[in-house]
Parts: sequence; C-alpha cells; structure tokens
Amino acid sequence: MVKNRYYSAGLSSGVLVNMTNLRLPGLIDPHVHLREPGATHKEDFESGTKAALAGGFTIVLAMPNTSPPLIDDESLSLAETAAAQKAVCDYGIHLGASPQNIETAAQLAPRSSGLKLYLDATFGPLHLTDLHIIREHFGRWPHQRPILCHAEDRTLAAILMVAYLEKRSVHICHVSRRAEIEIIRDAKMRGLDVTCEVGPHHLFLTTDDIPRLGAGRSEVRPRLATPDDAAALWANMDVVDCIATDHAPHTLAEKDSDKPPPGFPGLETSLPLMLTAVHEGRIELDDLIKKMSDNPRRIFALPEQPDTWVDVDVDAGWRVPEKQVSRCGWTPFAGMPVRGQVQRVTLRNQVVYENGLFFATPGSGRNIAPVYQERGS
Amino acid sequence: MVKNRYYSAGLSSGVLVNMTNLRLPGLIDPHVHLREPGATHKEDFESGTKAALAGGFTIVLAMPNTSPPLIDDESLSLAETAAAQKAVCDYGIHLGASPQNIETAAQLAPRSSGLKLYLDATFGPLHLTDLHIIREHFGRWPHQRPILCHAEDRTLAAILMVAYLEKRSVHICHVSRRAEIEIIRDAKMRGLDVTCEVGPHHLFLTTDDIPRLGAGRSEVRPRLATPDDAAALWANMDVVDCIATDHAPHTLAEKDSDKPPPGFPGLETSLPLMLTAVHEGRIELDDLIKKMSDNPRRIFALPEQPDTWVDVDVDAGWRVPEKQVSRCGWTPFAGMPVRGQVQRVTLRNQVVYENGLFFATPGSGRNIAPVYQERGS
Repeated sequence: MVKNRYYSAGLSSGVLVNMTNLRLPGLIDPHVHLREPGATHKEDFESGTKAALAGGFTIVLAMPNTSPPLIDDESLSLAETAAAQKAVCDYGIHLGASPQNIETAAQLAPRSSGLKLYLDATFGPLHLTDLHIIREHFGRWPHQRPILCHAEDRTLAAILMVAYLEKRSVHICHVSRRAEIEIIRDAKMRGLDVTCEVGPHHLFLTTDDIPRLGAGRSEVRPRLATPDDAAALWANMDVVDCIATDHAPHTLAEKDSDKPPPGFPGLETSLPLMLTAVHEGRIELDDLIKKMSDNPRRIFALPEQPDTWVDVDVDAGWRVPEKQVSRCGWTPFAGMPVRGQVQRVTLRNQVVYENGLFFATPGSGRNIAPVYQERGS
Repeated sequence: MVKNRYYSAGLSSGVLVNMTNLRLPGLIDPHVHLREPGATHKEDFESGTKAALAGGFTIVLAMPNTSPPLIDDESLSLAETAAAQKAVCDYGIHLGASPQNIETAAQLAPRSSGLKLYLDATFGPLHLTDLHIIREHFGRWPHQRPILCHAEDRTLAAILMVAYLEKRSVHICHVSRRAEIEIIRDAKMRGLDVTCEVGPHHLFLTTDDIPRLGAGRSEVRPRLATPDDAAALWANMDVVDCIATDHAPHTLAEKDSDKPPPGFPGLETSLPLMLTAVHEGRIELDDLIKKMSDNPRRIFALPEQPDTWVDVDVDAGWRVPEKQVSRCGWTPFAGMPVRGQVQRVTLRNQVVYENGLFFATPGSGRNIAPVYQERGS
C-alpha cells in the first residue's frame, strides 16, 4: 500500500482522489530520444510523445543525436518543424555540442532546452574529446541555461572540475555506477552546482539480467551496471535529482542484429516501475514526484502547465506487456509485475490520453522554448 | 649575457663566482626513469645517476614503471638494493599505484618519495582507469606525502576534482598542452593545491621537429605538442612549479625499430637548454633555480644537501653532442647550440663530477626516504 501524504489539491504534488486513484502533476522527462529527424522507423515526434502521454509525461526534452544531429539552425529547424506538426505533449529540444559549433550553439540557446555534451561512447555521431573544446562550450553557452553531459566515471570527475572552474551548473545524465553517484554526492557536499538523473533501467536491471535479456537487447549506454552499482543508486537516492528515462527506442530487428545499437525505450514503464518501488517502500511518493516533475521543472527552468494532471490507479497490479506505444515495439521490462497504472492524462484541461486511447491532435504539443524567449533569458 | 642577481653566498640560490662562473645549488629532478630493475641495457642506477651529475642534478626521483613495476615490498626492494649499490647522486624512489595495491602502497609510503598514478597511455604496464580506484588511492595514501599523476587533457581535469574532493595536494607530471597549463592556472587561482612540472622537450621541441627527428626518435608520452602548446607553456611559466626532465632512455636501436618505445633522455641537456633560455631572456635565472631546485625540494619535502653545489660556466657556448653519459647513447637535442655548461658538481664537500669525469663511488648516493622516516611523516 502506498504511503500517501497527498490530500491537498495543489497540482504541484499528488492528490489522493480515492483509495486507489492518485492525481499527479504532469511528469517531465528531461532525456528522451525521439529519433526525428533521420530514424522515424524507430520513433517520431508523434509516436514518441504518445508514448510519453501513456507514461504520464506532459513535457519531454528531446536529445540531439539524431540524423543529422541538431547542431545548427538548419538541423534544429528540422526537429522544430517535425515536432510542431506532430507532438501531442509539450516538449523542448536539446542542442548538441560539436567541436565546431561553439558560437552557433550559444546563439541558438533561446530555441533549445539545453546543451548536450556527449563525452563518452554512445549512439550517434556527436562526441567531444578535447578539454579546450569542452571548456569553450562551458564558457560560451549562456550561464543561466542548462548544460547536460553524458560523462561516465572519470569523465564525470573532469566535467565537475570544468563546471567548477567555469562557475556554472551542470546536469549529469544517466548516472549508473557507485563511483559516479558517490562523486556527485561529495561534489554537492562541497557546494558544487551539480544535478543528476538516473534511469529506471539502471535501478531495475543489472548485469545479472543480461543472460535473460540476451546480448543485443541488453545493450545500452551507459551499460547495465553491477547489482552493487544499482544498490548504490538506491542508497543515494537523496543525491538523485531526476528520474529520466533516456528513452532510446530501436526496433527489435536492430536489437537482435549483429550490431545491436545501444538503448532501451522507457517512457511507458518509468512511472509504473517507480510506483512499484513506492509500494515496496524503496522511495517515498513525494520524493518520486519531486524527481519526476518538480526537480526537472526547476533544473531546466520549464514553464508551469496550467490545468494539467495525470490520474493514476496506484494499486493496479499488471505485467508490462511486450507491445508498447513507442514505435520500437518492445521493452526490456516485458513481463515484469508492476503496480500503478496511468489511467488518464489531462493537458490544459483537455483529456489527451485515457485507458490506451489518445485524444490529442498531432501538433497540439507546445515547444517550451518560447517561454525562455519571453523571459529574455 | 645572463642577467644575474646572485652575489650572495647562500647555496639556496646561485652565486656569481666570476663573470662566467655561476655556483648553483644542487639541482633536483623529480621525474626520471632509471630502468632498473628490468631494462639495464637502457640505463641503471649508476649510468642514470652519472647522467644526473653531468647535468647538475644531485637528487633524482626515480619512476616505478620498471620491470617488474614498483608496486609492492618485493619489487621496491629490488630498486632499493640496486640504487644502494650503484647510485652516485642522492635519490628517491616513487611507488606505482595499481588497482590491487591501495593498502600496500600506503604502508610502503615511508620508503618512497611519492605515489605515481599512470592515468593515460604511456610506457610500461602501470595504468589505472577506474575512478573508484583512483579515489581510493587518493584517500588512502598519506595526505602529507606527494601524489604524482600522468594525467593529460580531460584526465587532468578529472584528477583535479579528485584532489579537490579528497582535500589533498596533487602534482601533475609533464604538462605539455595549452589546455593543460591553462586549467592548472585556473585551478591554482581557485585555490586548489596543485603543482606541476614541464619537460624541456615540450618547451624546445614541437610537432614541427618530427620530420627532422624521424617518427621513432620523436615518440614520447605525452607526445610532442604543437608550437602553440609550447608557446602556452612559455607564456604561463609562472604556473610551472618544476622543470623535470622525464628522462626516459631507450636505445637508438629501440627508437629506430618498428615499435619505437616513447621517451627521450633529458638529464644532461635540461640545464644547458634552460640556461640558453635565460640568455635569450625567456626566463629569469632566479626563477629557473626555483623550478629546478627550490620548488621540487619543497613539493617533495626533500632534505637539504649540505655542502653541495654545482659550478657552471654560464657563458660557454657549445653544441649538444650525439653521445651522452646515459647508457641510451643518444639525445633528440643533438646538434642544438646551447650556452651554459656544468663544470663541476660537489656533493657533501666531495667533488663528484668535473669536466666529464666522475669521482663518486657507486653507492655513495643516499636514499632520501629515511629522512621522511626520521621526521615520522
């Protein structure tokens, strides 16, 4: 039984409607791959934002390692146009940092939700290696706007020093190892302006699951870590600012091929998995809502969504099905028993999702970027 | 003409004996590879410390990437025994950090001059990758004893964060790039307890010299950098704490082979090259003495050497010969015109070197480690 402290009607926290129904604020996922432009056979802005609604998310922030990568006006425009036509929930678009686009990225900052630096091996062409390029991006990108880093292990230590010397904040993506969450914990204790996210797959899957999943279907970056690493993430949950899915859809044919690309879908399974953890007493519900709504809103300076909420049957027990709304059509969590199911999503007073059906017009989702521009930040 | 401010008789600074003769304190090189145990066809404690005396050095600190590497009592004893029998100048021996020797290294600290962490590609088997191992070494090694790191580019940024979080000092070896000296400069400005060394080869040789030297003979780690990198080292000379040779002898046959090992000899050429820079107005003599004697003594807490000095003909112009005292028998600086020549080295009131001749008994050099032990540090 969920230990529930949400009796107030404020939408910034959960509301207990009756014994099993919970009203949550719209969830925010700051880290999704919607594969558009360039790989719409895996996902696009419509299928991806539908998966988001089905998972209880009303804002998603899309990653720039598309094809082409989002590193300049032309490529960013491709994503903006596709999203404007197709998105059914609100969204932001992260820009990618390349060795060549330091000035360009800074100029495009008002049209994006953050600058993403890929500093370790991952899917796609974006990768930065040189310290001076990294420092120049940190120095040039507007200081009040988010920088997100894929920075594992000692790269993470490096990026913390860069942020410290450049006197700015940094958000660390998909923390997966004990050494990583511990150095972030220690850096926070020393006053560094660092935030971080953890993906449900690094909380609920480990190297122990690889034989069961198979080699291709367990490929993800950062890789599945050890049970000790996952235990360290749970033990340091107070250090974790956001639960972010790193929703990274690839088709089953791709995952089962000779060269399986890394990544899992995650939008539809994140909330049920985390609510199951609430049932099991591993995390408090109010803390979960902070990590899935309040904190990402604050860290990425996202606008409030008025008259927007998510109705959840908090006690519903079910098994994650093979089939997903996401175009990729599979999930590594298939068959897992969970408790807590999204029943209905209301966006700006319109029911946009209910019991597996979508009622939103493609293109009704809004880009959060103009809010920044209005604020002049 | 050297701008000379050394008229006092204090041996912690230079003394102008007459118009061309300068009396310097014994020089200290905190970074030499003497190849013993395991590769005495390149160098051993006798040939290497003779090369040191010929270069004006009276203390050298030997690196642990020997064969076997110096990572435990048994291997350290091999080096200690060889040095005790052969060394003709004073010396310390750095321990190597391995993934397995965290406790052992800390226990052996009183017998060593520092702990060396190899964090980027270099010669030999010692290499650390994992952040948690690095942090454990930093946490466990006595805080008042030196830690030295081979940490290039973003690895350097990482190690600065580790030192910052562990609240201890760190010494960065062979800084070679603009981004490196600049991040050390910025870290010092923010109050971090970091010191660094630069090798003459990174000041006097660049990628422009590779065609002339040939591929094998220009192999060194860190690699020869660009002229812009070398200019940044000169421009930030106030950030450089030590001139250290990284004396890394390999035979010419090895250097000219299909798999040339990285490294240059440097003990005999460091002072002449740097005095030439004094003549050229690129560095002040008193600053040079700080970087080649005072600073390494302070950073590595080395004992004073009473009645020890080096007589130099500061105006002597000569060309670096092919032949070196070092057993490796070559130098990448051969043929380079320099000004300033070591005439005589006096160690504890004994003339141990004069005009190419050695008067020291093998084994007369002392291990500086017992000094630490007496201090109980």
